[in-house]
Amino acid sequence: MTDITASLELIKRGADELLIEAELVEKLKTGRPLRVKAGFDPTAPDLHLGHTVLINKLRHFQELGHHVMFLIGDFTGMIGDPTGKNTTRPPLTREQVLANAKTYQEQVFKILDPEKTEVCFNSAWMNDLGAAGMIRLAGQYTVARMLERDDFSKRFGNHQPIAIHEFLYPLCQGYDSVAMKADVELGGTDQRFNLLMGRELQKNYGQAPQCILTVPLLEGLDGVNKMSKSLGNYIGIYEAPNEIFGKVMSISDDLMWRYYELLSFLPSSEIAKLRTAIAEGRNPRDVKVQLAQELVARFHNLTAAVAALEDFEARFQRNAIPEDIPEVQIAAGAEGLGIAMVLKQAGLTASSSEALRMIAQGGVRIDGEKLSDKGLLLQAGNTVVLQVGKRKYARVTLN
Amino acid sequence: MTDITASLELIKRGADELLIEAELVEKLKTGRPLRVKAGFDPTAPDLHLGHTVLINKLRHFQELGHHVMFLIGDFTGMIGDPTGKNTTRPPLTREQVLANAKTYQEQVFKILDPEKTEVCFNSAWMNDLGAAGMIRLAGQYTVARMLERDDFSKRFGNHQPIAIHEFLYPLCQGYDSVAMKADVELGGTDQRFNLLMGRELQKNYGQAPQCILTVPLLEGLDGVNKMSKSLGNYIGIYEAPNEIFGKVMSISDDLMWRYYELLSFLPSSEIAKLRTAIAEGRNPRDVKVQLAQELVARFHNLTAAVAALEDFEARFQRNAIPEDIPEVQIAAGAEGLGIAMVLKQAGLTASSSEALRMIAQGGVRIDGEKLSDKGLLLQAGNTVVLQVGKRKYARVTLN
Repeated sequence: MTDITASLELIKRGADELLIEAELVEKLKTGRPLRVKAGFDPTAPDLHLGHTVLINKLRHFQELGHHVMFLIGDFTGMIGDPTGKNTTRPPLTREQVLANAKTYQEQVFKILDPEKTEVCFNSAWMNDLGAAGMIRLAGQYTVARMLERDDFSKRFGNHQPIAIHEFLYPLCQGYDSVAMKADVELGGTDQRFNLLMGRELQKNYGQAPQCILTVPLLEGLDGVNKMSKSLGNYIGIYEAPNEIFGKVMSISDDLMWRYYELLSFLPSSEIAKLRTAIAEGRNPRDVKVQLAQELVARFHNLTAAVAALEDFEARFQRNAIPEDIPEVQIAAGAEGLGIAMVLKQAGLTASSSEALRMIAQGGVRIDGEKLSDKGLLLQAGNTVVLQVGKRKYARVTLN
Repeated sequence: MTDITASLELIKRGADELLIEAELVEKLKTGRPLRVKAGFDPTAPDLHLGHTVLINKLRHFQELGHHVMFLIGDFTGMIGDPTGKNTTRPPLTREQVLANAKTYQEQVFKILDPEKTEVCFNSAWMNDLGAAGMIRLAGQYTVARMLERDDFSKRFGNHQPIAIHEFLYPLCQGYDSVAMKADVELGGTDQRFNLLMGRELQKNYGQAPQCILTVPLLEGLDGVNKMSKSLGNYIGIYEAPNEIFGKVMSISDDLMWRYYELLSFLPSSEIAKLRTAIAEGRNPRDVKVQLAQELVARFHNLTAAVAALEDFEARFQRNAIPEDIPEVQIAAGAEGLGIAMVLKQAGLTASSSEALRMIAQGGVRIDGEKLSDKGLLLQAGNTVVLQVGKRKYARVTLN
């Protein structure tokens, strides 16, 4: 029972909702490896840390000795959007699906143990179902209950069209659980209705209903919006070590704890110790470094993690900008002002020709980065930190 | 164009609704044989005249040279009721479907020309569709529009469950029209929504939309309710010649004209002449005899029709009960009263032993039928017409 308590703690760490806990306890008590399902679109994946929250949770199950089934929803992927309205969802060919699946595996096996992961394709059983089986499946649920799903209910209420095939997709997802004999299904909070469908259908098909575990959306680097590529607040798992490292170092201390909970594989007890250490005076920056290194090591390797830290520290030393530097206001004019004139007017060089020489020698930095473009034109409204040599700084605002 | 006018008149005779007439005219103008579809459940058929209204209409199309497609909906028949709630709709086996189809053909080929009738089974294309095709099909229509169907709208409004597969059946029926390239589809008035679905889907699949023709429900012998087996007001096409004949003779004169319109193959002009003849004094009974003979000839043969008339007339003569016969009231007692005592007390025989002798000789009729059961017990509340020999009658009511 201590084991089960510990297992439950790990399973629930950072999770949004577990249904039904008592049923999961019963399943865990049997001692057999549970069949743990998670489904993914077969579109070309380019995962960021937000996506890995769910995959990390699968890893937790693997660590506890359970059987993880990584389901690729190729059946619906090959259908695309049957209404033809959503051009971003063209039907995929079998070749595309297989290529995407391969890319998926390359990415998720950075987190999951390939030996303990079964990759499934739902076309295997969905095609066997046939048109008649699809109708039988549709007979398992009512229109009214389907309309209870949040997005359906809203769209129906707002007189926005719902194509009938959209009612079939949750049923297909539920039937996947039947075909896979899933004990547990994982998904995002937005998948709650569909995950519950699996429970319903399993009951109808004489199976014990799966437990469902939802994981939250990860906040992006800004700590406010969900991590997403389009918002630019993401860390891609294929980014260079220095990028990953630097982005982690840029987050707030609050967000760091959230990332520790959802992204780190440190045991909760170790994380608690880090919190205590900081409360007792340790620099949060060191703890952030530790997280950044863990993530670089996961998606690259330990050597890269060490190198990234060294690089970061060297840059930090080099680029460290003193806290008190002169503020300078300069008139840019309607067409902007060349960088050499800016350096001269800010008093950082004696003349614009000295400015050009310093740039040529690599002795000028703008916002901490070495400047090489002698022709750079600054515009009214720009504010930049300029550095000439080791010691001369100014924060220049152009009007 | 005269041809087309005449064709249209025959097509529209007795029909409920034709959509869209202008489109049908265009199709007729092409001069090619139109593909005329009607769908039937693959359940064991036991047709009555009500069912033949639609089949007669198919025959009209055959007479006009068109291609009739008799569709047996075996695909859904083999699914049965996927919710398992409707025990009257068990899934049929392929063997049952084929046996039922054979019985159908035996019955409908009494009306249709087998040489000009194509019998189709929709499993041929529905099974090929597969689960993916079913989903694509479902993508062709919206939930809101499906809920516009009268019965769906009522059930949804009354919070009665609609299983999702019920939304798929109209789409399947519509897809049948696509697969069959139907020019015209016939159905009952209750099929209007589903017939229109065929038009929608044909447009989506790049076909010219079918015209739809609905036929009314036939009134039963009572002239009020629709003809149905459960109401007992029907004429089955497998009934004996005398039964069919007698039942037709029992209908009202008004109903006779309705039956002429929907069931007779006499041209409308001939029917008009019959109306005129009656208006000028001809006995309506003769006209009813003509209809009864036509129907017996159709479902049996001409010889049987002649024999049925002779038999009917003989019985009519024999069993004719005079209009003015004595009314007698007799006390039955709690346990009823034996027929011999009833005959004696009604004054039809001198004694109960004479009554028994007359019964033994076949000289007693009860409600026009020869009585052979000497032990017949009548109960309080019974009213019967009793006849002894040729001339003695009484209408006896037991109290």
